[in-house]
Amino acid sequence: MTKVLAIDVGGTKLSYAIINDNGEFLSEVKKTSTPKNIEELVQTFKNIIVENENDIDMTAFATAGAVNIENTKVDSSTPNLPKGYNDIDFSTLSKKPVFVENDANAAAWAEYKVGSAIGEDNNITITLGTGVGGGFIVGGRLLRGKSGRGGEVGSIKINGRGRICTCNRKDCWESYASGTGLKKTAEEVAIGDEIIKTSIYKDKKAQEITTYDIIDGLKKGDEYSKKVFNIWKQDLITGLLNITNIFDPETIVISGGMGEFIDTDEIANAVNNEIVVAPVKIKLAKAGNYAGMIGAALLACQKY
Amino acid sequence: MTKVLAIDVGGTKLSYAIINDNGEFLSEVKKTSTPKNIEELVQTFKNIIVENENDIDMTAFATAGAVNIENTKVDSSTPNLPKGYNDIDFSTLSKKPVFVENDANAAAWAEYKVGSAIGEDNNITITLGTGVGGGFIVGGRLLRGKSGRGGEVGSIKINGRGRICTCNRKDCWESYASGTGLKKTAEEVAIGDEIIKTSIYKDKKAQEITTYDIIDGLKKGDEYSKKVFNIWKQDLITGLLNITNIFDPETIVISGGMGEFIDTDEIANAVNNEIVVAPVKIKLAKAGNYAGMIGAALLACQKY
Repeated sequence: MTKVLAIDVGGTKLSYAIINDNGEFLSEVKKTSTPKNIEELVQTFKNIIVENENDIDMTAFATAGAVNIENTKVDSSTPNLPKGYNDIDFSTLSKKPVFVENDANAAAWAEYKVGSAIGEDNNITITLGTGVGGGFIVGGRLLRGKSGRGGEVGSIKINGRGRICTCNRKDCWESYASGTGLKKTAEEVAIGDEIIKTSIYKDKKAQEITTYDIIDGLKKGDEYSKKVFNIWKQDLITGLLNITNIFDPETIVISGGMGEFIDTDEIANAVNNEIVVAPVKIKLAKAGNYAGMIGAALLACQKY
Repeated sequence: MTKVLAIDVGGTKLSYAIINDNGEFLSEVKKTSTPKNIEELVQTFKNIIVENENDIDMTAFATAGAVNIENTKVDSSTPNLPKGYNDIDFSTLSKKPVFVENDANAAAWAEYKVGSAIGEDNNITITLGTGVGGGFIVGGRLLRGKSGRGGEVGSIKINGRGRICTCNRKDCWESYASGTGLKKTAEEVAIGDEIIKTSIYKDKKAQEITTYDIIDGLKKGDEYSKKVFNIWKQDLITGLLNITNIFDPETIVISGGMGEFIDTDEIANAVNNEIVVAPVKIKLAKAGNYAGMIGAALLACQKY
C-alpha cells in the first residue's frame, strides 16, 4: 500500500493528511493557516513534510494556479498566495517524491476515482463557486495540455452580452455562470427590467442584492428572482453544452457552492435537448471537501 | 510494412488507394462516383475491397458522420449518403480487418502524423469549409468521447447574436466561422449597415453577395468587404480562443477552403492576446486533399 502525504494549499489555510492509493484517509485532516510570506510558507511545507516523512512514500500538493507539465512548479499567477510562490521547486521539499497538481484538476481526478464518475473514462468536473473551474478526463487520462494549463474552461467566451470579467476580458463563461455571475445578473436585471418593481427586493440597491437573496427569493416565489436565476441557468447550460459537444462525456460532475441550487436533471435535459453528441449525465460531486487532496494523492501514486 | 486500403466516402465521390503505415501512397488514388442507393453502395465497397484484398492487410474508411466507439458503424445522420448507410456494419465487408473513422478526426490524425503538427501531442485541426469541423489530439491520442461523437466543435455556441444555423439551433460557431457564415455575415451587414452604400457591391441584392465577392472586395480595398471579413475573423477567433483555453494545444491546424484567406500569424496573435494558457501556434494544413484517407489508414494500423 502506497501512503501519500496530501497537502491542500489554500489562500487562508493549509490542510493535510495521509491518504493511501485507494483514496482512503489514514490520518485525520490537520489544518494550519497559510503564512503570508514566502520563506515562512516554504518552511511550513518543510515542517509538515518532515513531521510525516517516515510514514509516507511521497507527498502530493493540490494548489491554486496552473502547474507545469512536470508537476513540480506553479506557473501562473496566484493572487491569494505570497509573492515568490512561482519560484518554489516542490521537488526539492522532500527526500521522497513530490507531486503538484492544480486543485481543480485534482478534484476532477477524485470524482473519477472515488466520487461521482467512477469507471467513466470520459468525464468533466465543473466547479461553480466564486469562479468557474474545470477538470477534464479524456479516455481515462487527465487533460493537461502542452504546458499543464489545460482546462481553463471558465475563460471560454459565451453569449456576447459584453460583461467584463474579473480578469478584464469580456464574456468569460465564469463571469456569468459563477456565484459572482449570479449576483451580477441580479444587478443587471434590477437596473434594466421593470420586473424589479413588483419584487420583494424593490427597495434594495441593485448592487446590494446578493446571490443568497436570489436563492431565497426563488423559495418565496419572487418573479424577479426567478427571472435572474433563469438567465444564470441558461448561461450555465450554454457552457455545459459547449463542452459536451466537444468532449462527448459520460458525465459532467458539478461541484462548488452553487451546485446545491441547481436541479441536475433539469440541467441535463436542457443540455441534452441541444447537443449533437450522445446524451450526458449531470451529477453533483461527492468526493467531498478534500477532493483536491484525494485527487492529488491518487495522481501522485499513478506517477511514482 | 503494413498495407491499408484507404477509402474516402464523399457524398459525390469515393476515392481509394493503398497506403502504408508511414502514410505513404503505394498506389494511385482511384475515384468512382458514390452510388445513390444503399445496395449499390455496399456492392461498390465490396468490389473495391475484393479488387485489392490480396495486396492489403486491412481496410480503412474515412467518412462523414459520427462513427461508433468500436469503429465499425456510422451512428449519426449523413444527409449526403443513401438511406441505410447507418445500418452498414463495415467489419463484415472484408475477410480482413476493417476500420472506420469520421473524416475530420482522420484528417486531424494525418496532420499529427505526417502534416503540420508532427510530434505535437496536443493539437487540434479545424476545418473551415461549408461547415466547421474539428479533430482533437489530446496527449497523443484522438479524442473520441464516450460514443465516438466527440469533437463536434462546430456546434459550440458563441457570441449570442442569434443567428440560426443550418441545424436549426442558434449561434453555433459553424454558422459564423464557416464559408457559409461569411456569406451570411455579408448579407447581414449589407442589410443593416450604411457602409454598403459606398461599396462596390451597393447594387447587388444582399443575399446574392458571395464569399468570393468578399474575398475579391478585400483585394480591391472595399470597406464593406473589410468590415464583413473582420466580423467573420473575430467570430473565428472567438471559437479558436475557446478551444485553446480548454485544450492548451501546441498547434491549431486550419484546413478547408477558407484557410487560404486567413493570415495565420495575425489570427495567432489575436488568440494569444486573449488566452489564459500558454501561446498556441496556428498553421495551415499540409497533409493534402487525401488527409482523411491517410489518417484513417494510420489509425487502422494503430488499432490492428
